Amino acid sequence: MNAPLPTPAALSTSSERLWSSLMSLATLGATPRGGIRRLALTELDAQGRDRVTGWLREAGCQILCDAIGNLYAIRPGTDATAAPVAMGSHLDTQPSGGRFDGQYGVLAGLEVIRTLNDAGIATRKPIAVAVWTNEEGTRFQPVMMGSGVYAGAFTVEHCVAQRDAEGISVGEALAAIGAAGTDAAPRFDAYFESHIEQGPVLENEGKTIGVVEGALGQRWFDVVLEGQDAHAGPTPIELRRDALLAAAHLTVAVREVATSHPHYARGTVGRLVVSPNSRNVIPGRVEMSIDLRCADAATLDAMTDAVKGAAAKISADSGVSISLEQTVYFAPCAFDASLVASIETTAQAFGYSHRRLASGAGHDAVYVARRCPTAMIFVPCERGISHNEIENADPAHIHAGANVLLHAVLARAQREG
Amino acid sequence: MNAPLPTPAALSTSSERLWSSLMSLATLGATPRGGIRRLALTELDAQGRDRVTGWLREAGCQILCDAIGNLYAIRPGTDATAAPVAMGSHLDTQPSGGRFDGQYGVLAGLEVIRTLNDAGIATRKPIAVAVWTNEEGTRFQPVMMGSGVYAGAFTVEHCVAQRDAEGISVGEALAAIGAAGTDAAPRFDAYFESHIEQGPVLENEGKTIGVVEGALGQRWFDVVLEGQDAHAGPTPIELRRDALLAAAHLTVAVREVATSHPHYARGTVGRLVVSPNSRNVIPGRVEMSIDLRCADAATLDAMTDAVKGAAAKISADSGVSISLEQTVYFAPCAFDASLVASIETTAQAFGYSHRRLASGAGHDAVYVARRCPTAMIFVPCERGISHNEIENADPAHIHAGANVLLHAVLARAQREG
Repeated sequence: MNAPLPTPAALSTSSERLWSSLMSLATLGATPRGGIRRLALTELDAQGRDRVTGWLREAGCQILCDAIGNLYAIRPGTDATAAPVAMGSHLDTQPSGGRFDGQYGVLAGLEVIRTLNDAGIATRKPIAVAVWTNEEGTRFQPVMMGSGVYAGAFTVEHCVAQRDAEGISVGEALAAIGAAGTDAAPRFDAYFESHIEQGPVLENEGKTIGVVEGALGQRWFDVVLEGQDAHAGPTPIELRRDALLAAAHLTVAVREVATSHPHYARGTVGRLVVSPNSRNVIPGRVEMSIDLRCADAATLDAMTDAVKGAAAKISADSGVSISLEQTVYFAPCAFDASLVASIETTAQAFGYSHRRLASGAGHDAVYVARRCPTAMIFVPCERGISHNEIENADPAHIHAGANVLLHAVLARAQREG
Repeated sequence: MNAPLPTPAALSTSSERLWSSLMSLATLGATPRGGIRRLALTELDAQGRDRVTGWLREAGCQILCDAIGNLYAIRPGTDATAAPVAMGSHLDTQPSGGRFDGQYGVLAGLEVIRTLNDAGIATRKPIAVAVWTNEEGTRFQPVMMGSGVYAGAFTVEHCVAQRDAEGISVGEALAAIGAAGTDAAPRFDAYFESHIEQGPVLENEGKTIGVVEGALGQRWFDVVLEGQDAHAGPTPIELRRDALLAAAHLTVAVREVATSHPHYARGTVGRLVVSPNSRNVIPGRVEMSIDLRCADAATLDAMTDAVKGAAAKISADSGVSISLEQTVYFAPCAFDASLVASIETTAQAFGYSHRRLASGAGHDAVYVARRCPTAMIFVPCERGISHNEIENADPAHIHAGANVLLHAVLARAQREG
């Protein structure tokens, strides 16, 4: 039988040490405007990986590296047969990335291990920190490459053959920085990823912890509307086939579909291109995108049907043909209910304000969830801004997220079975 | 006292001769796709002006040329004190222009004079054909330059100083082709312009003659909508400030304003540019145009107020700022009621199907109407297409328009006072 779990008051991470690690790592690829540019599998990425694995090794971890370059730092447990409880995220950044996206999840994991070491706590199950290769997908596609390979979404062979804009392959880039490992990827008992929210919900409600229930499913469409160009002056309203007007009705319909469905339903028209785009010509053609997201697969299907129905009605009313082609589908991902509940009760025990939410964007955790029970912890980021050099977060929130991670991981690691 | 007016059956223009003149003139600047490229004050334009004045001189006319190059061919009347009843239009074309826009109005005038000559009809008032310089405004701005000078909308000094893309001034171009005249522009008793409709109304209703009541007033606006860029995934609907969604609502509102107002009200969003225009980013900024047109000035003002009211409501509902700046204002132009009625009764007498309508675009007649009673006669053009090499018209409609012009001009020319 294990020792009773420590209370929040008895065990907490070090805010200063965690912040210091983040700022240290942020010097690698630092940009003048305060962000980071550290693209996947570059020399800078290698420096980041080396610095972090150095810290983890010093903290008593064994380091493994698999064929796609994912790193796994393992702190042994007392039960030699148990699978590790893992934490983690990624170290690569966007071209104009910030100081928190990705590296927070990795360094929060490091901070948990350092805290357990300082407190002399041995866990039944091992504790691990995973560093997933190429989450951002800006130099090499597909995005979330390392965690995708881990989950079986792509093969290593497929991924190593992908090339960047200069023609360098993933395989060549891995070899160049010595990141093509030979270790087998470990099976995890569970996986926790802490991350900035990259959205405005927590800040807007003044909440410290986001208890992430899952990730939204996505359906993306390319839409083409074809009407008839005509001079705006001599063409009466009733004889027009105005593709932009039809696109406007469809844009409004997308919003209405999103607001009338549950489960974090969202709908966005982000791209819209008008032809001929001249102020006194009725537009004959519009190309636009539709992005539908929802936490529930059946609801996402219903939203799709509703948008298609609206498009058919708009087309019939306007004489403008409307074609929708689906270009992307991601199924919704529901995180493990017991891990989600554990994060929630831990936040509660610390007295941190919190709320459940869904991740609207993709994360490594969404792929890892295919292999083991998974959950995420969100902390607020300033004005919801991410993928930007001005990305910022409050040290108190960064600390709170690490504390919740610590106790949720500890509870899972000490659990029998 | 004059002889009684001839009946339609007794006097009609020659369809073959008119068509032959049109096709002859269309060889000057003919394009491979069947159109004309004969830009204002070029050598080709000079050839066109010379050919037409040659025909008019042969038909017994005296030719005058004013300082902006407008040509006036005068067939004398029996009353030496009477001002002429004029017809006309322009000979310059768009860069990819058609065979009817402009030159139909001039050559229909020539055909009327030839018909009167053949029938041996002397009129009390002189009959004139006006050729207005640079109606299209593609080489030199402003558009409708010659008729604008005639109307006093611009000075000759202002216009001759305007330069084309190669730096050649209007004054230099006039001198180069010998078109800088010294004659005073004559005062007209009335002005009739026959023109293809350049819109779809007549063809759509199977009508032969458009009885043009006036030209629509225009108000053009540049609109800027400013919201907030944000990632489409993590940003819930209720926290968005989506500039494109606001622009869509405004586009729908513009149409609703147009359909809910009388007097040929039209409203068009022809240009719309989204920023950043990425499929998974909520648009933070949209620039768009609004083009409102109406035959009644007070109604056009009311439409403007309605659009501004809609914009204010959309802004309040969406958190997106919306600014409207008016960039163009043309007042509506009502043509002379007695001339309009005369065209209508003449079309009726010939048994031509007809309807009243408004010109949605500008014409020389709109400026000339500032100086004398004016009206226009429209004939259908194929699919409403103009400003295009494939512009086309039915010879029977071209003939019908000339017949209406003939009898309306004759009635006015024989009228006492």
